[in-house]
Amino acid sequence: MRDIGIGIIGTGFMGKAHAFAYRAVAGIFPDSPRPVLQTVADIDGAAAQKAAAQFGFRRWQTDWRAVVEDPGIEIVSITTPTLAHREMALAAIAAGKHVHCEKPIAPDAGTAREMMEAAETAGVVTQVGYNYIKNPILKLARSMVEAGELGDITGFRGIHAEDYMADAEAPHGWRLDPAGGGGAIADIGSHIIGLARFLLGPITEVNADLQTMVASRPAAPGASERRAVEVDDIARLTVRFARGCGGTIEANWVATGRKMQLAFELTGSRGSLVFTQERLNELLHYRADGDPQRNGFARIEAGPQHPPYGLFCVAPGHQLGFNDLKTIEVAEFLAAIAGGEKNGPDFREAWEIQKVVDAAIDSSRARAWRRIE
Amino acid sequence: MRDIGIGIIGTGFMGKAHAFAYRAVAGIFPDSPRPVLQTVADIDGAAAQKAAAQFGFRRWQTDWRAVVEDPGIEIVSITTPTLAHREMALAAIAAGKHVHCEKPIAPDAGTAREMMEAAETAGVVTQVGYNYIKNPILKLARSMVEAGELGDITGFRGIHAEDYMADAEAPHGWRLDPAGGGGAIADIGSHIIGLARFLLGPITEVNADLQTMVASRPAAPGASERRAVEVDDIARLTVRFARGCGGTIEANWVATGRKMQLAFELTGSRGSLVFTQERLNELLHYRADGDPQRNGFARIEAGPQHPPYGLFCVAPGHQLGFNDLKTIEVAEFLAAIAGGEKNGPDFREAWEIQKVVDAAIDSSRARAWRRIE
Amino acid sequence: MRDIGIGIIGTGFMGKAHAFAYRAVAGIFPDSPRPVLQTVADIDGAAAQKAAAQFGFRRWQTDWRAVVEDPGIEIVSITTPTLAHREMALAAIAAGKHVHCEKPIAPDAGTAREMMEAAETAGVVTQVGYNYIKNPILKLARSMVEAGELGDITGFRGIHAEDYMADAEAPHGWRLDPAGGGGAIADIGSHIIGLARFLLGPITEVNADLQTMVASRPAAPGASERRAVEVDDIARLTVRFARGCGGTIEANWVATGRKMQLAFELTGSRGSLVFTQERLNELLHYRADGDPQRNGFARIEAGPQHPPYGLFCVAPGHQLGFNDLKTIEVAEFLAAIAGGEKNGPDFREAWEIQKVVDAAIDSSRARAWRRIE
Amino acid sequence: MRDIGIGIIGTGFMGKAHAFAYRAVAGIFPDSPRPVLQTVADIDGAAAQKAAAQFGFRRWQTDWRAVVEDPGIEIVSITTPTLAHREMALAAIAAGKHVHCEKPIAPDAGTAREMMEAAETAGVVTQVGYNYIKNPILKLARSMVEAGELGDITGFRGIHAEDYMADAEAPHGWRLDPAGGGGAIADIGSHIIGLARFLLGPITEVNADLQTMVASRPAAPGASERRAVEVDDIARLTVRFARGCGGTIEANWVATGRKMQLAFELTGSRGSLVFTQERLNELLHYRADGDPQRNGFARIEAGPQHPPYGLFCVAPGHQLGFNDLKTIEVAEFLAAIAGGEKNGPDFREAWEIQKVVDAAIDSSRARAWRRIE
Repeated sequence: MRDIGIGIIGTGFMGKAHAFAYRAVAGIFPDSPRPVLQTVADIDGAAAQKAAAQFGFRRWQTDWRAVVEDPGIEIVSITTPTLAHREMALAAIAAGKHVHCEKPIAPDAGTAREMMEAAETAGVVTQVGYNYIKNPILKLARSMVEAGELGDITGFRGIHAEDYMADAEAPHGWRLDPAGGGGAIADIGSHIIGLARFLLGPITEVNADLQTMVASRPAAPGASERRAVEVDDIARLTVRFARGCGGTIEANWVATGRKMQLAFELTGSRGSLVFTQERLNELLHYRADGDPQRNGFARIEAGPQHPPYGLFCVAPGHQLGFNDLKTIEVAEFLAAIAGGEKNGPDFREAWEIQKVVDAAIDSSRARAWRRIE
Repeated sequence: MRDIGIGIIGTGFMGKAHAFAYRAVAGIFPDSPRPVLQTVADIDGAAAQKAAAQFGFRRWQTDWRAVVEDPGIEIVSITTPTLAHREMALAAIAAGKHVHCEKPIAPDAGTAREMMEAAETAGVVTQVGYNYIKNPILKLARSMVEAGELGDITGFRGIHAEDYMADAEAPHGWRLDPAGGGGAIADIGSHIIGLARFLLGPITEVNADLQTMVASRPAAPGASERRAVEVDDIARLTVRFARGCGGTIEANWVATGRKMQLAFELTGSRGSLVFTQERLNELLHYRADGDPQRNGFARIEAGPQHPPYGLFCVAPGHQLGFNDLKTIEVAEFLAAIAGGEKNGPDFREAWEIQKVVDAAIDSSRARAWRRIE
Repeated sequence: MRDIGIGIIGTGFMGKAHAFAYRAVAGIFPDSPRPVLQTVADIDGAAAQKAAAQFGFRRWQTDWRAVVEDPGIEIVSITTPTLAHREMALAAIAAGKHVHCEKPIAPDAGTAREMMEAAETAGVVTQVGYNYIKNPILKLARSMVEAGELGDITGFRGIHAEDYMADAEAPHGWRLDPAGGGGAIADIGSHIIGLARFLLGPITEVNADLQTMVASRPAAPGASERRAVEVDDIARLTVRFARGCGGTIEANWVATGRKMQLAFELTGSRGSLVFTQERLNELLHYRADGDPQRNGFARIEAGPQHPPYGLFCVAPGHQLGFNDLKTIEVAEFLAAIAGGEKNGPDFREAWEIQKVVDAAIDSSRARAWRRIE
Repeated sequence: MRDIGIGIIGTGFMGKAHAFAYRAVAGIFPDSPRPVLQTVADIDGAAAQKAAAQFGFRRWQTDWRAVVEDPGIEIVSITTPTLAHREMALAAIAAGKHVHCEKPIAPDAGTAREMMEAAETAGVVTQVGYNYIKNPILKLARSMVEAGELGDITGFRGIHAEDYMADAEAPHGWRLDPAGGGGAIADIGSHIIGLARFLLGPITEVNADLQTMVASRPAAPGASERRAVEVDDIARLTVRFARGCGGTIEANWVATGRKMQLAFELTGSRGSLVFTQERLNELLHYRADGDPQRNGFARIEAGPQHPPYGLFCVAPGHQLGFNDLKTIEVAEFLAAIAGGEKNGPDFREAWEIQKVVDAAIDSSRARAWRRIE
């Protein structure tokens, strides 16, 4: 397969995760285009230099424009705080690059739409970092829904709860900036909304209640000065799906004790599914037509029978990890660029997710239901 | 301890559960008044006769008024369908009886209030069959909340999901009668609402979305004629508590695969709890102040250190069952009658629960938030 | 059904459990003979008097012979320390009583055999308190084995681990008396050996390693003097079954953190089962012939489809507790006396179990395999 | 850090896992020497060529000697069937290479000793692929044991059970060759023996019972001819550790339904641990000194507080996968070569493990205990 030049902007949690994945992908997916790590950029030059050495980028830069303008780069990966995404993505699109952007791609649906339209007009391929839905066991879940195995879907309970902001002394930062972050609903709510849509399709109505539980936080790490928190710590959504059923969705970043409770229970007339990212290699499955004496939720363990697990390991039950999900995301993006299936989620899907986020914020302010058009 | 005469009206699931419990209680609770099973009544005389023989009642009747009027009976236990509760309870109260009534006590809050006021005016003791909160491990949970061990409570996710109505061929019946049953929100929603109040106190606001998933059911068991379903199969509530935090509550009787998912996750600034009735002898507990390397949700197993478990079994981990919870309910009722602490839930608490149920139904119709006064 | 007079000797943990069960059984099993609690005996007169009042016995005694000699008593229930069983049981048998004896019935197989032969010669019915195998979900497990559903059984891993002796300050007592108790192998090892036999039939060979982990304990509660421990704290058995497969069995009463880990994993060529008494209402079941993509261990929850669960509760998933298992034991014993099926375990089965215990002790001393004839 | 040339012999399950890990390590461990994938060798040239392309090796070979003789290669990774290890490893050692060899390194302890002595004489660093003990959460487990947190260790129950040979039609192969494979005891028993030693140190005595459950298998994939099975399908070991406590260890490759049950329960006087590789990011931990009302097994989830998890992901609960464990193994090997700590397991440890395997086989044949010197 051909080589494909990669530039990554940002070297934080997600910058590293992207670098791991682009490094790993060709070893796991033998038919994948082969990423060549060209340039990593970070406004902190030392961080950029260190990342370049660690991951084997050929160059590092402090100016992200160098990435966008480099003719040897086909894919621009954007892993900066949300507020910076728009300018970078539009520049990359204008330069004809394919864009891999972390979620949420924008602080509001209007901006997301602008980015989506630019990408679609330019004809570049986009990929957004909703990595959890790349899990082979969730691909199985979706296929069960689509094949009608679970019958008519009657309900969905989705949660994304973690506790990284539970400590009232956790400082302010871009995720708490109402202009750029948007609170738990945007930071992790977008993941569970995306997962709900992945499994069940469009959400058409929402009634949300957003709460700020920690009124103020240190203005900066270690600061004695405190800054009021204007975004939600917890968002509780009641939703209706276009397919007719309803559900609830919660985003919560003050969920003491929870580290990665991206979880759902999905119930249908003929079967049900239960999942939590805390045990990402397992899916609980109930079939209504089982022998009554012997029936119960079966714990399906991920294995080679759930593609592309087998590319990582030929033996079942050996477990994928978080970075492996990112590698699948990258593999699918590369395959789409190479002319294969476009699985997304792309900028259009990110825009759809953002519309639900915006509607939830609006619903909570208005204390009323909102339709999502 | 003194003897106390018992009359039970109804011989179905709950009639039997009451009879088991009244039979068992004095053997488990050595200081309890000793129930004497006087009379069991059922409109089906054969059922009444059979129950009398099985449980050792001295008499059986087809007319419930014989129970209410019997001077040898101090406690009238009402286990009939909801619509019949009011007349029976008011008659029993008028006759000076203490009343043990199954939940919900009434089809609407107005009726519940009438019953509550009659009982309080008459000065009789009332007990309502919200048996799940009698669980020793839930008494521990409540004590943790009350003692502030969990810090400020930030959220509650409550569920009562079962699948006894999941089959579209499950027939119509009194639970589906909008005048008398009220759907999943009344039948099992009242349990999880009651549990939420037990743990966290009053609910002040609700926004609910009720859905009917099975449009029609056989009009009667085995009937080919179908009758439209007018009540909810699933109720999704977003609530606010008087203490400031919010939460979600779901009642669902079409939850394929779930047999007894009365469950919650309760999160506070200093700790969290997770519970499901599917494993009623366990409580998961997380303390935010644990050693970070070794911290995690601890699985507390019920034992003698959680009263009154030790009266059932001196050894920990041996497990209580459903009927044991009912026995605790009866023991507390008898103790209250004998002058001890009134733990309830009494008719006043049942009225409070019913107000939330009514507000949820009203909210769903209006598609708007409702306050609970 | 006819009445049947009961006398219980002993008022400790098991004395109470027997009394609960005899009180409860007729209310749960409508076709059962009706126990009449005649006499309770305890060498501690105050304890006997208190138990009589609590459970409603007509009389209490300090001399157990009064129970054995009472013509109004048909069943003698023996719940004293092991060493006392023989004399009481032989006297009861001699008096023509049916005998319900706690486990182990004797400190060694020779004594157990003597008791068994006496009972069989006299033609009385015997019942031994291996209550855990009365669990409806374990009846299902056994039926699966017997029907061949699991194919050829290839292995069994059985454990009975608790921590009631883990504290080195837990005092000496009859369970630690090598003449009368026999250590963990006798006290709880007999349960898991009994369960292994219940599921898989006779054990023919054993190689055991018994260890004493706490060298000495306070000679009595609160004593400063210490007494050496001569019995095992942990027994590890490798066994072969007559059916051809092998297994391991562990008895452990110093298993820190475990309260009721009576557990097994049973593997066959076509399926497997996993169980722990910590979650006694669940059985995990794997079928080798399941759809590979969707296969996994199914969590079967006990319900009315697993008799006699439905007599306790008509709804699935509501859970039985420890005392309910004892009630089933009593119900089956009463039914056997009334001419029904003799499910046991009777004195013969207790003797068989004791032979395995004895062989394990002998094997450990000899550091060699032992056959069980 | 400096570059270090890698040659891998074999391209199967483990050959790929090694290649993934050597590719990934420098991106995860910033201070690691940087592997340069020089040569991959496989007797099947097409497989070697494909692997070279997939993983980015500079060359491929059909003759493994080309790897051993290449002066640009410092590390020779041996992933072939066991019987081939000795010749390759001795040649690599003779050529002054560091050797990374899959487990078991040899079919018997004598051969393992020869390999160990050659490596130690030559002064090369060796690494054996007991990857599961590289799990950060198991490093925590070991540190708890070593620090005395769990008190005196009283017992260990270890299992490695899978079902890849459960189907009687699974064909013969090198793992079933008594000369070269050694059955379940060698193939996976060596993993759990290694884990037992990692946690608790030397095993001094063993009594084992090995069983062949599938008497014959197809002589080759698809063959109608059958070949008798001479190795064990299940091995059950009772062991004593040098530290005084005992335990059981089971290896089982016909454990229907189990895909990766590498599991243990480790009990001490002050605490206990429970682990299964099925949920490799979790460790259950019980402290005997906890508040009795709130005590229970805590579910510790792996996070950055458990090094080197944080190098893979800065957020807790995100989960490592199987390939990540192999990457840690490689990182530690590279660090040892670079002069850092030698964590092993090296050839000496592999020899120690093999002595236990040999003693178990011998014990089972002799039906007697065996000491391990």
